[in-house]
Amino acid sequence: MKKKIYPCVIGLGYVGLPVFLRLKKKFKTIGFDISKNRINSLSKKIDNNKEFNSRDLNLDNKSEFVNSLKKIRNCNFFIITVPTPLKKKNMPDLSYLFNATKMVAKYLKKGDIIIYESTVYPGTTELLIKSVLEKKTSLIENSDFFVGYSPERINPGDPKHTIKNIVKILAIKNQTTNIKNKIVSVYSSISKKLYITNSIKEAETAKVLENIQRDLNIALMNDIFMFSKKMGYSFSNIIKLAATKWNFLKFDPGLVGGHCLPVDPHYLHYIAKKNRINLKTILAGRAVNSNMEKFIISEIKQKINKFKVTKNKIKILIVGVTYKKNVCDIRNSLPLKIFLNLKSQFKNTFAYDYIYNSQNNKQFNIINKIDLKKKYDLTVFLVNHDNNKKIYSHLIKSKSAVYDPFNFYLN
Amino acid sequence: MKKKIYPCVIGLGYVGLPVFLRLKKKFKTIGFDISKNRINSLSKKIDNNKEFNSRDLNLDNKSEFVNSLKKIRNCNFFIITVPTPLKKKNMPDLSYLFNATKMVAKYLKKGDIIIYESTVYPGTTELLIKSVLEKKTSLIENSDFFVGYSPERINPGDPKHTIKNIVKILAIKNQTTNIKNKIVSVYSSISKKLYITNSIKEAETAKVLENIQRDLNIALMNDIFMFSKKMGYSFSNIIKLAATKWNFLKFDPGLVGGHCLPVDPHYLHYIAKKNRINLKTILAGRAVNSNMEKFIISEIKQKINKFKVTKNKIKILIVGVTYKKNVCDIRNSLPLKIFLNLKSQFKNTFAYDYIYNSQNNKQFNIINKIDLKKKYDLTVFLVNHDNNKKIYSHLIKSKSAVYDPFNFYLN
Repeated sequence: MKKKIYPCVIGLGYVGLPVFLRLKKKFKTIGFDISKNRINSLSKKIDNNKEFNSRDLNLDNKSEFVNSLKKIRNCNFFIITVPTPLKKKNMPDLSYLFNATKMVAKYLKKGDIIIYESTVYPGTTELLIKSVLEKKTSLIENSDFFVGYSPERINPGDPKHTIKNIVKILAIKNQTTNIKNKIVSVYSSISKKLYITNSIKEAETAKVLENIQRDLNIALMNDIFMFSKKMGYSFSNIIKLAATKWNFLKFDPGLVGGHCLPVDPHYLHYIAKKNRINLKTILAGRAVNSNMEKFIISEIKQKINKFKVTKNKIKILIVGVTYKKNVCDIRNSLPLKIFLNLKSQFKNTFAYDYIYNSQNNKQFNIINKIDLKKKYDLTVFLVNHDNNKKIYSHLIKSKSAVYDPFNFYLN
Repeated sequence: MKKKIYPCVIGLGYVGLPVFLRLKKKFKTIGFDISKNRINSLSKKIDNNKEFNSRDLNLDNKSEFVNSLKKIRNCNFFIITVPTPLKKKNMPDLSYLFNATKMVAKYLKKGDIIIYESTVYPGTTELLIKSVLEKKTSLIENSDFFVGYSPERINPGDPKHTIKNIVKILAIKNQTTNIKNKIVSVYSSISKKLYITNSIKEAETAKVLENIQRDLNIALMNDIFMFSKKMGYSFSNIIKLAATKWNFLKFDPGLVGGHCLPVDPHYLHYIAKKNRINLKTILAGRAVNSNMEKFIISEIKQKINKFKVTKNKIKILIVGVTYKKNVCDIRNSLPLKIFLNLKSQFKNTFAYDYIYNSQNNKQFNIINKIDLKKKYDLTVFLVNHDNNKKIYSHLIKSKSAVYDPFNFYLN
């Protein structure tokens, strides 16, 4: 008798929730998260990440959001989508991944399948198999249980490249047709276009490479951006000119943050260094992009110095504190860091962000409703959420001092 | 009475010759080069760079190829297209540019126009105006004579992006309509699409940026290429996987050479450093791309070590020695350097290149006709000139040992 596929998604953040929501349309699916708060909100059909609305969160096929480990014991198809951040000294922090894997190992049965989606350095999946899955169970990979890797390509705030529409890589070893078909059938219900490879390590490398390429290209633009400002040249004109070449690639300078671009280069660099491979381009972008925090602070302070208001009296408003446009996430957010730094120097510094979740606002005292009658000596635009342009236009009309360092609203 | 435009192109290399050939269709044009050999060949309708055939070199409108300075004295529209290479310690070598400018200064008259096309660091044109053109004459820029900058976008070996078809940047200051019209009318006869800006410095920056972006992106691929080889991963599979992401940019790894990509990053870095601006991404690519010479040599030697032939007897053939595909230029060619290095270690190392000019072959002893009956222990493909694939296919059929490090002929 063929056993029914019973999937479980472990980790319901930016990556796991969309996977769960696609799966529950076809399968009875368990969605597990270690955060009680997250499970409580999701059960009330609230996604605090604001990527999904209450209708999206309706549960089909008796699927469940759970916080209890016991609930996952009968599942036979595990998808692990936990965070892989950095710890001290920019070292990969695989603790979430190890913990999730240990959890699964506890309930691992013959015939079970595990797919990892978290971004990792090449070789991590193999490491988890050998050091956890096989070690904690008496089971053997590829004969008792089966492992695959399908790197997440979630782009928060981007309604076009959804998990349903994008090409999803699925790395599965040369398993039997039966196992292969099972994995493909589950993933076909997640993404319409699958690209299958039999090398997990190459898929792990491809994933970090994608983000490193983006980080590096933005860093080059940031370098030219800082060069232009210091030399008194128009950055936007330089880019317009360069873009008239047939093969020039337009990237915008900016405050690179979040949980991918600032993290992934360190993952690849870590494993390369461990293997005594000296990669010179991988971290070149990181140095530049991190430095943008300091650069923008000094630019803002230059503006401030021109005002005839004392340090304690000057009123500054920062518009946008999340790590990127139309996203409420503040992990590794440079706009937030810039705000906090300025606030420590100029006590009348305020921040406004209508997307960043009001529930957590208390910590940083971030305004989420703007009062346009209130006057600030300088308003600085650090994130171009869709609605911020209206504020900019209003301030320009009322002849208030504004600073738009990245020319979001030029023209 | 309106004076007739009488253009003179100074420097008839890869950049100047196409400019001259477009101009002479409409104007009586002087083409000047300091090399007697170049002028002699061109007069015999031979382009040793193999970019143009004898029909292209027919002279219209009484235009002339000249080597004598006297011939340029009556010209009134100078276009300077001389090389801007590096000197020791990767410092910009502006000597050709200064010499050409001094030459023009000698004959500069009121109303004359000078356009620079050579790649330079931002500020160079201004420097040439102040330190040569105004100093050597008693004339004042923008009232007695006029200067512009139109960065060259010649892509040797690329029949698609010709000077006629590409967008050409034309940087001219806020001159009178009369002067502006004159410059535009001359450049309209060179390129069909002009993009006009009034900032010379921004155009200078845009030009180097274009090449730095390319150098850096190839370097990232070279880093991943070396990483893959060392880790035993398939580089081509990694790229295939990454390329399934909607915003991944495909660049090929390779032996970056020639007179642009290895040079231009140093130009921008020079002027940034002079202004105490620390740009971290600009030279990151250079270090990686230069290192590819050493890496490929060590890869070839690894292959060689597997043969049971002594160092003095092993016969190696290098296919392709120019700096890039379908180009006969060997300036800064890494394939040539690899060949010479191997030859110094394995005396029976030979090189074949059917495009590299036979006239200069003697120096390096490069074969330009291949005898397929001759047997080599190993044939290495370093440049993928169009016809090299045939040789590869032949060797594969005859079961000879081949090495195609960059997978030119995979699939």
